[in-house]
Amino acid sequence: MEKIAVLGAGSWGTALAMVLSDNGHTVTLWGNKSEQINEINEQHTNKRYLPEINLPQNLKASVNLKEAINGANYILLVVPTKAIREVCQQLNNELTNEVTIIHASKGIEPDTSKRVSEMISEEIDSKFLKSVVVLSGPSHAEEVALRHPTTVTSASKNMEDAEVVQELFSNGYFRVYTNEDVIGVEIGGALKNIIALAAGITDGLGYGDNAKAALMTRGLAEIIRLGKAMGANTQTFAGLTGMGDLIVTCTSVHSRNWRAGNLLGKGKSLDEVLDNMGMVVEGVRTTKAAYQLAKQVNVEMPIVNELHAVLFENKNPKLAVDALMSRVKKHEGESTSNYISDLAE
Amino acid sequence: MEKIAVLGAGSWGTALAMVLSDNGHTVTLWGNKSEQINEINEQHTNKRYLPEINLPQNLKASVNLKEAINGANYILLVVPTKAIREVCQQLNNELTNEVTIIHASKGIEPDTSKRVSEMISEEIDSKFLKSVVVLSGPSHAEEVALRHPTTVTSASKNMEDAEVVQELFSNGYFRVYTNEDVIGVEIGGALKNIIALAAGITDGLGYGDNAKAALMTRGLAEIIRLGKAMGANTQTFAGLTGMGDLIVTCTSVHSRNWRAGNLLGKGKSLDEVLDNMGMVVEGVRTTKAAYQLAKQVNVEMPIVNELHAVLFENKNPKLAVDALMSRVKKHEGESTSNYISDLAE
Repeated sequence: MEKIAVLGAGSWGTALAMVLSDNGHTVTLWGNKSEQINEINEQHTNKRYLPEINLPQNLKASVNLKEAINGANYILLVVPTKAIREVCQQLNNELTNEVTIIHASKGIEPDTSKRVSEMISEEIDSKFLKSVVVLSGPSHAEEVALRHPTTVTSASKNMEDAEVVQELFSNGYFRVYTNEDVIGVEIGGALKNIIALAAGITDGLGYGDNAKAALMTRGLAEIIRLGKAMGANTQTFAGLTGMGDLIVTCTSVHSRNWRAGNLLGKGKSLDEVLDNMGMVVEGVRTTKAAYQLAKQVNVEMPIVNELHAVLFENKNPKLAVDALMSRVKKHEGESTSNYISDLAE
Repeated sequence: MEKIAVLGAGSWGTALAMVLSDNGHTVTLWGNKSEQINEINEQHTNKRYLPEINLPQNLKASVNLKEAINGANYILLVVPTKAIREVCQQLNNELTNEVTIIHASKGIEPDTSKRVSEMISEEIDSKFLKSVVVLSGPSHAEEVALRHPTTVTSASKNMEDAEVVQELFSNGYFRVYTNEDVIGVEIGGALKNIIALAAGITDGLGYGDNAKAALMTRGLAEIIRLGKAMGANTQTFAGLTGMGDLIVTCTSVHSRNWRAGNLLGKGKSLDEVLDNMGMVVEGVRTTKAAYQLAKQVNVEMPIVNELHAVLFENKNPKLAVDALMSRVKKHEGESTSNYISDLAE
């Protein structure tokens, strides 16, 4: 059994800490809100993020980063993408031994276009960094906390590290598969939030399931086009972290990106939506990053373009969706088609 | 404008007849229940199949096949797969001129493993059969009847025929894309019903969205494996008639295959479920066909196998789903993995 620090006490960090506690590891959950940390330690609940869930008694929490990581060989990072660098800088100041950093954050940094694992590698002194492993897949925290059957992927350039993480997390309800394609896993996890925002908009407009399925199909094709240009293995996008995570994020009521899109589709402004959510909506920031990235690598991403216009250029959501629906493409196999991925090229 | 006969007055036949009527064609809807046909002609409704929908005034219906097809160069066949041969035989007796047969039925014939277009070609005298075109995609009839945005594929070995059908159906809310891969389009449309039954079961068991997304991801991989063995273009499965239709059928409350699976998951017997539905559940028969076909062409289809055991060998649905969830596969890219399609091979 291992000593593991989980940095980030939101819904996903807490749910993953529960999985590790269930597996008998000694887990310390770190967060910066003392009221919340006290609640976890004293009442064994984290009501704001996982209402109605009782946490394992052996799960401890701390506001002290030094204390949380003391003696840990594994550190699980589950903070919003925009906090990754800052938390890594704090962590770097406290590290005294080599660690494997596992991350479960889904996003891409605007302006730099860096993936989360790249940001971690840049911020953590290489002498302390044994390896970076990504944990990703179709996994609403609310269901994992209820111990519903869930499957995810553990990805690392070094397969042995991915396998160690697989071993740490695997149990009867939480099944972990390995993959060496870190780029594909991170791109899929980040970009599905964009498609979920768009799917929420079509639902908010009342366009129905037929329209949403078409949008999701086109969405995966866009993700694959970008992923291929970034060096991902296109097969990854047909798996859990691609199609699987896209489906769960676009069709489940638990998805905060879908819910944010849904409010936009119903006519709320972006500011109202973000105030309303009370949690980070990763897709908003990732849209900016993907929009820039698509231009840089010269990949056609019509959904990203329209969503960027809605979020940052005040375009009416209905006009944006109608523009997507009326694109003139006649044959599914056309080279510029949105409906067919280039998986088989 | 064309004269078109639509054979089959269920929900999908009626919705497609509405699309054609909206486009100004002269449409006769054929069915064999005189009460229903009278209702369509006199009240302009088809309440059993499309409650709350008012049909176009110019849409006529008939119980007389000879009358329905009189003067038509296009015949749209929308009957359950098990009725295809019988209706084609009746049609063959009445035909006096060459016609293009468009079909929108999703299934495979058990024992013969024939696709719908193959059955049509076998039953209709070649001197009357100009072409067979398949119309398929993510398209709940209920939403099409409400004129919600919908995208489908028109597929034929001969692209010109597919384009003519595209032209007949296309309008502002109903967008049609062409594809030459008839095998892929038919296999995708038929087999997604099997996965929808299985998805309904996991939902009926209360396993949640994470489990369902994993099942759907594995399901598409199974469909692709079989499709590839049958000669389909694997790219087709990433498009509207593959992934798109799978999503809409597994996640929408409109799907009768999902609803049937959901009742099975809640403990009802197959007989009770089929009595309860009152409509044909194509996935049940397609499971039998796919089970046989997978053995013939030596393709691994674990979901099909487990569902076959539930439907025809009285296996407990929970044991079947648990068997799928606990399959020992460690790496996403393993050659026998269920999680990754071989799209890119």
